[in-house]
Amino acid sequence: MSIPENQPPEAVTGESPPQHGYTADKDAYLRRLRRIEGQVRGIARMVEEDKYCIDILTQVSAVTKALHAVSLGLVEEHIGHCVIGAASEPDPALRAEAIDIKVKEAADAIGRLLR
Amino acid sequence: MSIPENQPPEAVTGESPPQHGYTADKDAYLRRLRRIEGQVRGIARMVEEDKYCIDILTQVSAVTKALHAVSLGLVEEHIGHCVIGAASEPDPALRAEAIDIKVKEAADAIGRLLR
Amino acid sequence: MSIPENQPPEAVTGESPPQHGYTADKDAYLRRLRRIEGQVRGIARMVEEDKYCIDILTQVSAVTKALHAVSLGLVEEHIGHCVIGAASEPDPALRAEAIDIKVKEAADAIGRLLR
Amino acid sequence: MSIPENQPPEAVTGESPPQHGYTADKDAYLRRLRRIEGQVRGIARMVEEDKYCIDILTQVSAVTKALHAVSLGLVEEHIGHCVIGAASEPDPALRAEAIDIKVKEAADAIGRLLR
Repeated sequence: MSIPENQPPEAVTGESPPQHGYTADKDAYLRRLRRIEGQVRGIARMVEEDKYCIDILTQVSAVTKALHAVSLGLVEEHIGHCVIGAASEPDPALRAEAIDIKVKEAADAIGRLLR
Repeated sequence: MSIPENQPPEAVTGESPPQHGYTADKDAYLRRLRRIEGQVRGIARMVEEDKYCIDILTQVSAVTKALHAVSLGLVEEHIGHCVIGAASEPDPALRAEAIDIKVKEAADAIGRLLR
Repeated sequence: MSIPENQPPEAVTGESPPQHGYTADKDAYLRRLRRIEGQVRGIARMVEEDKYCIDILTQVSAVTKALHAVSLGLVEEHIGHCVIGAASEPDPALRAEAIDIKVKEAADAIGRLLR
Repeated sequence: MSIPENQPPEAVTGESPPQHGYTADKDAYLRRLRRIEGQVRGIARMVEEDKYCIDILTQVSAVTKALHAVSLGLVEEHIGHCVIGAASEPDPALRAEAIDIKVKEAADAIGRLLR
């Protein structure tokens, strides 16, 4: 959304701070990424130990799949929070522009995933 | 190829040990995998620091692309070494069977990459 | 959006009928799909004429890429029209539900594209 | 393989003509491609009839998947016939070169499928 990235915590008072779509699931994302990191380390170990190339490929496919699942979660949250957030902008002219930007960002991100 | 995975080094004497296709490029593969591991860690850091979801998605796409490049290298070496190795089996009946197994393995691995 | 699929034209009067996101670009989509259809027919002809498998694969990749471009356009329009349309529902309870449905549909569709 | 593409039929006598890997399954490939062509035509019809974008996307994903299956079959046959054919070249110098060319072609084709 439109919050500055490195906003100091004291700037946000009273209410809970504005959040990205994935913030609620932050711990779940971090756990998944730690697991993926461990899988990549495991693949490096397989290469070091001269494991069979097909077994290494199977592990690489598993990591790619896990990354796709992370991507899909982030895209869903981008649409559900950032795009929808833009749609709730009260000024119609600003709203149309904000929507255009967020939808274009989503489409570009999905395009990069498909390539 | 057909060497047992955990063959003790003393079993191979005189000549250099038989190798997988990727053995010659082992250091290059390890460097690429270390870099990918670092990229995944960087993505986790972005999530921790509440970075913008689209920027995180861009990094996830970059890691997926890097993994595809590793996969493609391994597939190429599987075909160039394991499949071709099977084709050089002198006994025609064993050769046909070995080729079938290695080609099937390659196709299955590529199928997993495409999914 | 929420219009029934086969709504008779007379049901919509005065204003232009409600449309799907892609309706404005309908002719462009139809042209692209006709071209893809022709490409698939061309691939069949290559198989019939025993063309080299790698040349056929190159054409299959081109068609897959063209289909990805069509998908991406449809996803972008789904987000820009159907998701945003749900966000403009005046009743807050219905709005939340409509958004959830449309975002989920988008994510599921993107997930099918990634697989 | 190494046969010229447009070899006149009279050049091949007595035995069955040299074939590409997919020739044995030619009819099956043609049937699959005709079905894919029909699916693309069905998608165009859905666009013409203003069907819901998500339903169109589901069909586009099905066609992409069907094309992936065709690709995978062609890759498997390229490896099993063209690569293996190169490996049976009697002259060792020509063989090494022929293998390199065919393996490189396979890897490039797989790389295009992954992109």
